[in-house]
Amino acid sequence: MKKIALLLMGCGGVGRQLLHHIVSCRSLHAKKGVHLRVVGVCDSKSLVVTSDVLTGELDDAFLSELCRLKSNGSSLSSLSDFGECRVYANSESNNTILEIAALVGKSTGLAFVDCSASSETIGLITQVVDLGCCIVLANKKPLTSRTEDYEKLFSYPRYIRHESTVGAGLPVIASLNRMLSSGDTIHRITGSLSGTLGYVMSEIERGKRLSDVVKAAKSLGFTEPDPRDDLSGMDVGRKALILARLLGRHIDMDSIKIESLYPKEMGPDFMSVEEFLDNGILLLDNDVQERVKKASMNGNVLRYVCVIEGTRCEVGIQELPNNSALGRLRGSDNVLEIYSRCYSEQPLVIQGAGAGNDTTAAGVLADILDIQDLFS
Amino acid sequence: MKKIALLLMGCGGVGRQLLHHIVSCRSLHAKKGVHLRVVGVCDSKSLVVTSDVLTGELDDAFLSELCRLKSNGSSLSSLSDFGECRVYANSESNNTILEIAALVGKSTGLAFVDCSASSETIGLITQVVDLGCCIVLANKKPLTSRTEDYEKLFSYPRYIRHESTVGAGLPVIASLNRMLSSGDTIHRITGSLSGTLGYVMSEIERGKRLSDVVKAAKSLGFTEPDPRDDLSGMDVGRKALILARLLGRHIDMDSIKIESLYPKEMGPDFMSVEEFLDNGILLLDNDVQERVKKASMNGNVLRYVCVIEGTRCEVGIQELPNNSALGRLRGSDNVLEIYSRCYSEQPLVIQGAGAGNDTTAAGVLADILDIQDLFS
Repeated sequence: MKKIALLLMGCGGVGRQLLHHIVSCRSLHAKKGVHLRVVGVCDSKSLVVTSDVLTGELDDAFLSELCRLKSNGSSLSSLSDFGECRVYANSESNNTILEIAALVGKSTGLAFVDCSASSETIGLITQVVDLGCCIVLANKKPLTSRTEDYEKLFSYPRYIRHESTVGAGLPVIASLNRMLSSGDTIHRITGSLSGTLGYVMSEIERGKRLSDVVKAAKSLGFTEPDPRDDLSGMDVGRKALILARLLGRHIDMDSIKIESLYPKEMGPDFMSVEEFLDNGILLLDNDVQERVKKASMNGNVLRYVCVIEGTRCEVGIQELPNNSALGRLRGSDNVLEIYSRCYSEQPLVIQGAGAGNDTTAAGVLADILDIQDLFS
Repeated sequence: MKKIALLLMGCGGVGRQLLHHIVSCRSLHAKKGVHLRVVGVCDSKSLVVTSDVLTGELDDAFLSELCRLKSNGSSLSSLSDFGECRVYANSESNNTILEIAALVGKSTGLAFVDCSASSETIGLITQVVDLGCCIVLANKKPLTSRTEDYEKLFSYPRYIRHESTVGAGLPVIASLNRMLSSGDTIHRITGSLSGTLGYVMSEIERGKRLSDVVKAAKSLGFTEPDPRDDLSGMDVGRKALILARLLGRHIDMDSIKIESLYPKEMGPDFMSVEEFLDNGILLLDNDVQERVKKASMNGNVLRYVCVIEGTRCEVGIQELPNNSALGRLRGSDNVLEIYSRCYSEQPLVIQGAGAGNDTTAAGVLADILDIQDLFS
């Protein structure tokens, strides 16, 4: 039985769903000769580690209890008196993680799995690269940091996977990587890459108010913790940057033209999430409704799309025919069209649900299984 | 530099295109730290092998010359006086291949790449599995043989790839494998999986005659060597079987309901390919034209599709709305819709060119790169 050791950062919706998938796939994976050994889990405050990182693991009962606690809003630190584990506070956790990475990475291999939405994991991740660890990301931020960080992460390209950073579990990155490794030349990528904005745009098209739709999307888990991360277009911008960098473009966030759906004065520097949802966003309803109506009178719909072509990389609202592939999109579906040498007349199209913890975590799990040959 | 040793079976359109891709990707692959070492190439009559299979290779000049010869219709045997290689006749080639597989498979690893359309490679392929070789298939036949053969091929599931057996280079198998390894449950697959029949159906829809369209498709390289392999539905049936087996169904070709586009009395037992194309197929033109007209009067189009759901696995012509995803298909595009736990309301859709030597060979090359971690 091949054992894949992993350390999980982030126990929000995606992280917890990943642990749930790992536990429920035990017998499936055993049939394929693989066992996922969860060495440690951390949230923003604490790190929980099995007492023997080289051979031990946080067992399934423990992982289930951990998920239960976290979904109730408790901290990992309350797990200290449960089973054979060690709990470290924030101040010690980075050093402990580096020690584990050094020890496990070079012996059996260690997959460092980032399911957080934090920009604070970058420092750690760039360090564990050199310790022989594999990196699996659902977190987009490490890939959208400075060019130096990006290049550091890809020092060993076979050791990193990040399917769920674009289009949740949709096989977007895996497919692009296949095209690139076979020498296909990619000319143009266009797509609707935000499950949230796809959902929002198609719901307001049905006559609902922007403010109501955004609140509903948040409660369905379709948005980032702060929905402005979606509405700003920054999240789509990050995905566009990830795709552009995958194609070999040496650019950063500043190079991407991004249209925001709210004005600067409603940004996080000026109001809290609650204020924005309770007051700010209401002021945007009418304007959006006007734009939708106007598009509708032309037989069109509004979609928030990204375009990557040559040196061009931009994201924003476009008015599109309602019978086009993008115009036909409903709910939180994402769609990506790729034009290349092999797909020159008609694009390669990948379409489906591009949001949701289940799908996102499934993409992360598929990534972990995909690197299994690197483990002894 | 990691070296991936490979032995290629079949130098038809796909095999030659693969060699061309390998040569033209040299610098791209070098940047990724990989070198593809072509140890040997065989067609139906001969086997050409580098004189030192453990470290040598057929060099790029040799491979180009080989492709030139084969595309002129010459045999590999005429290469005997060119460079440092050995040429074996058909009678010796199987034993020689097994010797090479034993020697190279267990030292550096060997990818056994089948780009033929032959059912005669199965015996050899099932044998090299036990010799530690990887298997990469564009040839569908080894996967649609008896259940025992199929299970033998998947003895080591990480050692086999076969993207280009369904939908040419479209990321169909890779995507399904990702879904399966993450524990997603697949409920239903529907699709248009024949580039040839997709092309044929959309061309006759435009008023062309079946016979003309099939001849044009053959000359464009869209058909199997004998176009009846496509028109019989057997080729789509094989793809449906490959997908159904991937989902874990223990069935064989006999379990699949297949609609043929020509009657039994025009089959290979009764007339040659030439007879069929010169005389037989003309007799089918009117009937097909009638069916197309009838569908058109209902606002529909005819598509040749496969459906896999529960124990159901069938392929044949269906009358579909011309504004559905399948009805909108043009040219040789394939489309696959996958319904699963993660894609329950809207399917995961993968669409694009599903035929052509360039795309098919690109899929094979991506598969070869995908198994690189198994090579020392």
